[in-house]
Amino acid sequence: MCQSSEELSQLIEKALPITNQGKLATYIPALSNANKNDLSIAVLDLHGNCFFAGNYKKLFTLQSISKILTLAYCLCEIGFEKVFEKVGMEPTGDPFNSIVKLELLDTKKPLNPMINAGALAVTSLLVGKNKELKWEGFVQFVRRLANNDTITYNEEVAFSEFETAFLNRAFCYFLKEHGLYDGDVEELLELYTRQCAIEVNCLDLARIGAVFANNGKDPFTGMEIIPMNVTRICNTFMVTCGMYNASGEFAIKVGIPAKSGVSGGILGVVPNRYGIGVYGPALDEKGNSIGGWKLLELMNRKYNLSIF
Amino acid sequence: MCQSSEELSQLIEKALPITNQGKLATYIPALSNANKNDLSIAVLDLHGNCFFAGNYKKLFTLQSISKILTLAYCLCEIGFEKVFEKVGMEPTGDPFNSIVKLELLDTKKPLNPMINAGALAVTSLLVGKNKELKWEGFVQFVRRLANNDTITYNEEVAFSEFETAFLNRAFCYFLKEHGLYDGDVEELLELYTRQCAIEVNCLDLARIGAVFANNGKDPFTGMEIIPMNVTRICNTFMVTCGMYNASGEFAIKVGIPAKSGVSGGILGVVPNRYGIGVYGPALDEKGNSIGGWKLLELMNRKYNLSIF
Amino acid sequence: MCQSSEELSQLIEKALPITNQGKLATYIPALSNANKNDLSIAVLDLHGNCFFAGNYKKLFTLQSISKILTLAYCLCEIGFEKVFEKVGMEPTGDPFNSIVKLELLDTKKPLNPMINAGALAVTSLLVGKNKELKWEGFVQFVRRLANNDTITYNEEVAFSEFETAFLNRAFCYFLKEHGLYDGDVEELLELYTRQCAIEVNCLDLARIGAVFANNGKDPFTGMEIIPMNVTRICNTFMVTCGMYNASGEFAIKVGIPAKSGVSGGILGVVPNRYGIGVYGPALDEKGNSIGGWKLLELMNRKYNLSIF
Amino acid sequence: MCQSSEELSQLIEKALPITNQGKLATYIPALSNANKNDLSIAVLDLHGNCFFAGNYKKLFTLQSISKILTLAYCLCEIGFEKVFEKVGMEPTGDPFNSIVKLELLDTKKPLNPMINAGALAVTSLLVGKNKELKWEGFVQFVRRLANNDTITYNEEVAFSEFETAFLNRAFCYFLKEHGLYDGDVEELLELYTRQCAIEVNCLDLARIGAVFANNGKDPFTGMEIIPMNVTRICNTFMVTCGMYNASGEFAIKVGIPAKSGVSGGILGVVPNRYGIGVYGPALDEKGNSIGGWKLLELMNRKYNLSIF
Repeated sequence: MCQSSEELSQLIEKALPITNQGKLATYIPALSNANKNDLSIAVLDLHGNCFFAGNYKKLFTLQSISKILTLAYCLCEIGFEKVFEKVGMEPTGDPFNSIVKLELLDTKKPLNPMINAGALAVTSLLVGKNKELKWEGFVQFVRRLANNDTITYNEEVAFSEFETAFLNRAFCYFLKEHGLYDGDVEELLELYTRQCAIEVNCLDLARIGAVFANNGKDPFTGMEIIPMNVTRICNTFMVTCGMYNASGEFAIKVGIPAKSGVSGGILGVVPNRYGIGVYGPALDEKGNSIGGWKLLELMNRKYNLSIF
Repeated sequence: MCQSSEELSQLIEKALPITNQGKLATYIPALSNANKNDLSIAVLDLHGNCFFAGNYKKLFTLQSISKILTLAYCLCEIGFEKVFEKVGMEPTGDPFNSIVKLELLDTKKPLNPMINAGALAVTSLLVGKNKELKWEGFVQFVRRLANNDTITYNEEVAFSEFETAFLNRAFCYFLKEHGLYDGDVEELLELYTRQCAIEVNCLDLARIGAVFANNGKDPFTGMEIIPMNVTRICNTFMVTCGMYNASGEFAIKVGIPAKSGVSGGILGVVPNRYGIGVYGPALDEKGNSIGGWKLLELMNRKYNLSIF
Repeated sequence: MCQSSEELSQLIEKALPITNQGKLATYIPALSNANKNDLSIAVLDLHGNCFFAGNYKKLFTLQSISKILTLAYCLCEIGFEKVFEKVGMEPTGDPFNSIVKLELLDTKKPLNPMINAGALAVTSLLVGKNKELKWEGFVQFVRRLANNDTITYNEEVAFSEFETAFLNRAFCYFLKEHGLYDGDVEELLELYTRQCAIEVNCLDLARIGAVFANNGKDPFTGMEIIPMNVTRICNTFMVTCGMYNASGEFAIKVGIPAKSGVSGGILGVVPNRYGIGVYGPALDEKGNSIGGWKLLELMNRKYNLSIF
Repeated sequence: MCQSSEELSQLIEKALPITNQGKLATYIPALSNANKNDLSIAVLDLHGNCFFAGNYKKLFTLQSISKILTLAYCLCEIGFEKVFEKVGMEPTGDPFNSIVKLELLDTKKPLNPMINAGALAVTSLLVGKNKELKWEGFVQFVRRLANNDTITYNEEVAFSEFETAFLNRAFCYFLKEHGLYDGDVEELLELYTRQCAIEVNCLDLARIGAVFANNGKDPFTGMEIIPMNVTRICNTFMVTCGMYNASGEFAIKVGIPAKSGVSGGILGVVPNRYGIGVYGPALDEKGNSIGGWKLLELMNRKYNLSIF
């Protein structure tokens, strides 16, 4: 059982050297300007204790971590059936930005909501009369999860991602081609790049994780924020597809529901115990935080976090 | 040696029954409303004799036949090197609308200019200060080839293709993602769908084919319309990739440079002998005119057209 | 909490109609001669209580269920490092008998031990001075797990699978090509087809599952049969890849470690609670027992089995 | 028109430097021990004039060049229909040793007879009561084509290829799996590796090419060795698929039917004019003789060989 921030600092020290072996994401300036040796963590247990180490208040963008939040939101708003009309449930050995299976499989549905094509399909389900209302609904949801009303997206990051999101536009048109989306592609892309550009720190992520760890209930008040069945579905996807095409290895080596992003963030969920937020922008070759992964491996060894 | 239109009529009669086994293209009304049992042909020899049969003056849209004309035009205007920086030269066993190889191959260049992605890359090379000037240059080129100043595109067809060209938009963004195009996607799509919607009849195609058969020279005046090396490159691509992913079989069974379109048109080139235009909108399962293919097979048997 | 066999009988009655929608495996007579409407189950809790319904003593062959047992055995015998030199840890959206990724991925290692190519790689690691000693070691392991000394393989089934295992031979030679196996292919195939042909009944499977549910300890005596870390690895693979390319959906809808075979068997593990053995030879289109899946879904709804 | 061996020597001198950029095949000693800077040629015209340059009497193994000879032989012996029941006619953008399309396409037939899987399918059609009679028939055919009774295969090369032909064994079992072959795999492999190990020199290849250039007739006696329609089919395949997955580029840049092998040999056919044999063991990255390709490009520029 994690008892002090000091313990976390020691683990960070052990994990830190591996960050030299990672690489920063380079496709937008906001990511390529990060500090490769940053590594920080926050852990929130379900009794309200919070431990942290490193520069845990530093803001970073959610990137792919947002995929699990949009999924959770859409499951809450429109339900299981409608979401899974548009996206499958199967892990895939392909990279997150692969289009191959979209063509080769008989069903043209993206395989799961954690790859880009699938996440776009889910984002297309955001409800609201117009773009701003869709956005408002979603960002409020994220604020409730994080218990932080100041959360918003970084306009500069969103804009630079929007400008260069050619592959994601290709996915959107693939979805249109196969009848999985019939709205405006540029609006969808704007919502998608905004959600990726939401800024949080490790504390925010730990708090979000704690809600998922607590079956959807606020860990302090016990009030339901999201239904239990939604957290179970999300936790399952985080296990089978949360860490890109290294999810299987992460399940073996760490064994907790987790979702990473190319900003270097990792949202971790230890059911009935902890929410975890990690930040370490140096990435391994599959796009996961190399230091964050190491840190979670060390934590699992010390605190036996695995659900398996 | 084809000596009379009567001979062609007899061949059409023999080929006609197979049109019942084909299917019309259905993705736009203009194609799905065609008459499945139409089958017509025009043959122009290099002495200026012209033979024809069936409803050879009926207009139809070029569709994929335009791909070889855009290639010829761009080779004329900007040259071999610049064209093949953007597109490869290899046939592919995949369907014309496959995206798989774009992702899997190390080079992200479309494999050849006869598949959609490759044709879009070539169309992106049209020269002109703006969209209309690019278009004007190309359509004038087609008119010169066909010796027909009235050739233009069908706006309704172009519009309905433009509206539903989601997969082609996906290809465009794939090209952008990989640095193969940096212009406006909607402009490119508009030029592309216009070129597909150019209306011709069998006579026009036969005349265009005769230019390719005559090493680029006008078969009547002997004046050069396109350089010989351009016709050779185009004739080669028509052999290796002109009939979608049945090109290899067509090369074996008929053996002439030919390019087909889903409208049911086929442009045929018998080097140093004939230009051929065929129209038969019933398609086989790979998208080639089923009656047109049969007709060309019968012609090859009778007149020994194959270059092999 | 499951309290009586009667409850299980009722669930079977509810699940039974769906077996009419399934199909028997047809590639060998032993499978195609099964009774499509068979559906049976045995559940063993960790206090030694056993519940059952249907024809739970009927013997069937393990088929792909053997994959998880070979993995467990090899992890016990030669350890984590050596096993995962030969096989990866990632789920794949492809069918169990797909060879595509073996070629396309840079690493030629089969993606995981639950697809055929990966299972062959694991079987190639069986230790023993000769084929019979390798076999003896493995079958004794299975007998210990099932606490049933009479377990053996069906020679006729093994032989007919061996005779027709052309695709598996292709996989073996692929492994050889890429330096992942350097022994005799026919020997490997014989061991593989024997392991697939091991005959068990639902009680045997329930007992095996109870060992995995009990962290590797005998549920009656508490003695360790396999180390806890091996059961954790196996349970993880059963979640991420145990139900062919429907594993992701099963994780969402049922949420327990499980491994199925085309004989219609399913091994289920409810950690710290139950081992489950199911038999229902009518298969869905991905190769899982259609009745068995339904039954486990109903059980999850009633007893809340999911680990998520 | 090539008039003297001196001209060929000059072309070789021009082409020679590029051999430094190539690499020898390394998978068997016989190939890896070749001299990287070897480059030689023989040209036989249809009047019986022969020109040559470089070490044109040096023996090398046919390797993939044999594929076109087996095809020709089987077309002669069992006819068009039976051959193309087992193999398709389409070029493919994939490498010669790719298995991907065998799985992904609905028809499991290898795409064409020039890729390994397709060549194995063709070799499986050799007629004869036993392996030695099958072999005898084929090698006699090659001797007739080359007008050289001493032609035989190199046993050491055949043996070392046989021993390491794991991928080809995988292809054979794939064929068996899909009902395209039902004989003994080891026998098929032995015939296949023998045919690859047939030793020829440039003169032999030039003579074989001259038969194909002369519509199947002996260029000296005018007697038919193979029917004209067989040479036409073979010439077509050499154009669409003869130079591995650079066939399209070769058709554009050289434009003659040709088949290469990883030994560095190229069989060239200039219809109605020449047979060509080239040897240059340094290969480009697609497996074609880098010096041989260059040499043929230079010859085309000088003598205008292209059929297009």
